[in-house]
Amino acid sequence: MTITAQQVRLKERPTGFPDDQTWEYTSVELPPLAAGQFLVKVDYLSLDPAMRGWLNDVRSYVPPVKIGAVMRAHGIGTVVESRHGDFEVGETVVGMFGAADHAISDGQDVTRADLAIADAPTWLGTLGMTGMTAYFGLLDVGKVETGDTVVVSGAAGADGSVVGQVAKAKGATVIGIAGGPEKCAWLTETLGFDAAIDYKNESVSRRLRELAPKGIDVFFDNVGGEILDSALANLSRGARVVICGGISSYNESKLPPGPSRYMSLLVFRATMTGFVVFDFEDRYSEATEQISAWLADGTLIAREYVAEGGISAFGDALHMLFAGANTGKLVLKV
Amino acid sequence: MTITAQQVRLKERPTGFPDDQTWEYTSVELPPLAAGQFLVKVDYLSLDPAMRGWLNDVRSYVPPVKIGAVMRAHGIGTVVESRHGDFEVGETVVGMFGAADHAISDGQDVTRADLAIADAPTWLGTLGMTGMTAYFGLLDVGKVETGDTVVVSGAAGADGSVVGQVAKAKGATVIGIAGGPEKCAWLTETLGFDAAIDYKNESVSRRLRELAPKGIDVFFDNVGGEILDSALANLSRGARVVICGGISSYNESKLPPGPSRYMSLLVFRATMTGFVVFDFEDRYSEATEQISAWLADGTLIAREYVAEGGISAFGDALHMLFAGANTGKLVLKV
Repeated sequence: MTITAQQVRLKERPTGFPDDQTWEYTSVELPPLAAGQFLVKVDYLSLDPAMRGWLNDVRSYVPPVKIGAVMRAHGIGTVVESRHGDFEVGETVVGMFGAADHAISDGQDVTRADLAIADAPTWLGTLGMTGMTAYFGLLDVGKVETGDTVVVSGAAGADGSVVGQVAKAKGATVIGIAGGPEKCAWLTETLGFDAAIDYKNESVSRRLRELAPKGIDVFFDNVGGEILDSALANLSRGARVVICGGISSYNESKLPPGPSRYMSLLVFRATMTGFVVFDFEDRYSEATEQISAWLADGTLIAREYVAEGGISAFGDALHMLFAGANTGKLVLKV
Repeated sequence: MTITAQQVRLKERPTGFPDDQTWEYTSVELPPLAAGQFLVKVDYLSLDPAMRGWLNDVRSYVPPVKIGAVMRAHGIGTVVESRHGDFEVGETVVGMFGAADHAISDGQDVTRADLAIADAPTWLGTLGMTGMTAYFGLLDVGKVETGDTVVVSGAAGADGSVVGQVAKAKGATVIGIAGGPEKCAWLTETLGFDAAIDYKNESVSRRLRELAPKGIDVFFDNVGGEILDSALANLSRGARVVICGGISSYNESKLPPGPSRYMSLLVFRATMTGFVVFDFEDRYSEATEQISAWLADGTLIAREYVAEGGISAFGDALHMLFAGANTGKLVLKV
């Protein structure tokens, strides 16, 4: 069986937003499988803010994507051919298969997805890296406790919407920060957040003072910039600030100023901690089990925004992410 | 006995550096002692960067000094009259007596100093709040371990010089950042630091990369600004950044930009934590005992810079602190 894979490769490192110059769409005939490999037909790709960081030629928690290489991307797909002892044709698998419609894998860091538990897009979102990020970031890094006031930025995005719901499940009061009245209404009316702040139309600082008069116990940040500063000014004593992302600066060609209120950490005896979900790999099964149970009993609601158009729409779909066009997890149907 | 106290009072809140408009020097006849009070003749005043923050009318870890009030200051002195059951005439006491040559105290948060262990200025420095700050900040907040690479900014200052020596005592490799070749030479030749970086004449980032090729495990920051950013870019995985102070911004009328490299916390899975030494009050005796032992066996060297001129030189002495004129702990002889 000869397979031609449609792939997205990094042509040129972007300085601001990735654009048409950034990507090259290629058709490549895949080599025959070697022993220990299997072929995946990719059904959905995960689109993540972290992808922007992977394009920069800097030292980070993973190496940058090389010029000319297939773009790094999580996907879910079906095994269509196998010379691997552990993976059989027909199985649904999740892994870092890259931005392509077909990929060869050696099984490393590949997990199985049970579509009886949730649809394929959910296995990239609430049951995927997104869910893992929310779960470990909030519980292990943020150390959330019953009665805490938790504030999450990018709250209507992939991570944020799960973080808020998990915090509610743990007995916290949850305030989400999102852009626009529709997203805010979704947070409070559908997801059960206690309150939402529309950063496009409200003063985040003033609203945080009103909504969290005793201060924020856990701030889970996906955004950075002014929103991080507003949160820092409104912490409670001993607060935990979890740095999950900083999407507001990802497309800046020059590093923007950092949080001018970082000395609030001293005033409030607070901690700001960064984390990378991959470090919790040994415990993914624990999170998957708990999140599956929460999805089954309605504690968590999974929402994905499925972009159409196949592999050739990869660049456009990624752009949606940085424009805040999606509510919930953004995936691309391949 | 009627006593006229010479005092320094806050006349006007400064916007930049405190100057002549900031202070009012007053002579006030103290009232007779009430039951439970004692009178202290103050011998030395502690001059601390934190004082600048106490002048701002903002919410912080202590209330701001009120306009017209005696400036808040730690001092060491002698009990010269007592109606307090626990404090006798002739005892040497340390406490927040304020910027004055005589003060009435009710004994709250007042401790005794044994001048057989160390001279009076040392009881404001290495055996005072300075030593407590270094001890708990490095050991409890920074969680230093044998073999760690510790970097301290403001290294030739009061806290910094103790931090570096305590880190050496704990088996760490210690790099100090200070201003000028004399201070740097003092760090390496007298205090036993492994290396020193002269931020006025060297690139801190480049030198940190050279001196800490495996990254910084603990960064103890007294300074903020660009030096904090340089350290953030050179952390090791799991590093602890201890925010003790940020003297580079204390006299700015507008809050300067924060650390643009704060996302390094994510890359390195690092933690940035602020602390206030007062929170460790219950354990001061533990630190005092350990530091006394280290002073006795030569592990720690105490150094104070004694400003002369009495109470009326308070404003000038404080200015020396922000100009970096002192090496070691700055105290004012009353």
